[in-house]
Amino acid sequence: MNTEAFFKLTYGLYIISTSSHGKMNGYVANTAFQVTAEPPQIAISCNKDNFTSHLIEESGLFSISVLEEQASPELIGLFGYKSGKDINKFENTPYIIGKTGVPIVTKECIAWFECKLINQTDVGSHIVFIGEIIDYGMFHETKEPLTYAYYRNVKKGKAPKNAPTYIKPEEPVVTETRSDSSRLQKYQCLVCDHIYDPAEGDPDSGIPPGTAFEDIPDDWMCPVCGAGKEDFEPLR
Amino acid sequence: MNTEAFFKLTYGLYIISTSSHGKMNGYVANTAFQVTAEPPQIAISCNKDNFTSHLIEESGLFSISVLEEQASPELIGLFGYKSGKDINKFENTPYIIGKTGVPIVTKECIAWFECKLINQTDVGSHIVFIGEIIDYGMFHETKEPLTYAYYRNVKKGKAPKNAPTYIKPEEPVVTETRSDSSRLQKYQCLVCDHIYDPAEGDPDSGIPPGTAFEDIPDDWMCPVCGAGKEDFEPLR
Repeated sequence: MNTEAFFKLTYGLYIISTSSHGKMNGYVANTAFQVTAEPPQIAISCNKDNFTSHLIEESGLFSISVLEEQASPELIGLFGYKSGKDINKFENTPYIIGKTGVPIVTKECIAWFECKLINQTDVGSHIVFIGEIIDYGMFHETKEPLTYAYYRNVKKGKAPKNAPTYIKPEEPVVTETRSDSSRLQKYQCLVCDHIYDPAEGDPDSGIPPGTAFEDIPDDWMCPVCGAGKEDFEPLR
Repeated sequence: MNTEAFFKLTYGLYIISTSSHGKMNGYVANTAFQVTAEPPQIAISCNKDNFTSHLIEESGLFSISVLEEQASPELIGLFGYKSGKDINKFENTPYIIGKTGVPIVTKECIAWFECKLINQTDVGSHIVFIGEIIDYGMFHETKEPLTYAYYRNVKKGKAPKNAPTYIKPEEPVVTETRSDSSRLQKYQCLVCDHIYDPAEGDPDSGIPPGTAFEDIPDDWMCPVCGAGKEDFEPLR
């Protein structure tokens, strides 16, 4: 079966946010579509393990910020690959508070919707939340939205494990490598904690198994969150 | 309120098809997203008035064909602006029959999914259908999918009235027009039946009220289905 078919579905990229009992959280989603025009309602699909899912169920509210095409790997890494159970993602992120009290991320976003939960459907690993749009607006009229295709093709980003579109990577073929210590040094991404292992390389990006981190081209990016090579540190 | 915010949501364009009791039908949708990875499931939003909705409820099955970027106005007009109650849309449209027996449009499409309905949620004017993917594949590996943004910006297409993203046009300002009969002649689109009225013009496409059909630039396209000027005939 050719899983490339799944990449022919077109998505934008969004930050879904909410707050409950004084706790704010948000995550990066590629699933948001308008389900009705009158009243305007939007559906999103959220992994049950996402901390944001629990907060949405508690508050019955969520906001959708539409990421701009030039959104930074740092923002996507923070909201897409870190858990709000561990950190406060809003500590250094510009946002506004909507009519209903939910946070709405403004940083590197071009439009937003604030929604009141009116329906939720359990679909197994995820919940489809349907919200009626209470308020909406634009931050930047002329900027283009970030699409999932652009994120994958230009930014070389991938879906995190909790995403509905996550596809398990095939087991890499491990070849024998030279045994000097520099070639075996693993590096870790400071943005999303992804570990680069020279024994595995990054075949999807054209880096064959056995490539030392130092030998990777400078324009290589983290295969998980899209951070640059300079955002990696030797793993201790 | 700036409804432009709604155009910052990113969609692809698809033909959703099904069959029930020997009757096949399909329609153009801009709402399809994957809701879970394991098992792979896809959600679509379908207007209750669409004939296809009734057939999906009867059969519990549907297919999704991903339109290619260069899909023709004729195909979009046929599946997007005609009702299957009146015509057999599959009569002159190439398709295959999937494992479950549903038709899957192949014409000008690059990938497809065949789904078994496992959940449906009434959201007012529309039903959100969630289907588990039974089978899927690719027709063309290298072609790009048609996005809603491309359809709107390049093809100048608009959402039909039954679409979840339909936005009511504002009342056009009617100005006095010259009273000779040629300037008052209305023209009708052969693809979607849209009527061009010189008294109203097509202000969204830069055609002011009072513009005779003959005076419209040759690259103008039907504001409803994207058909060309040559696809219009004088209304009797």
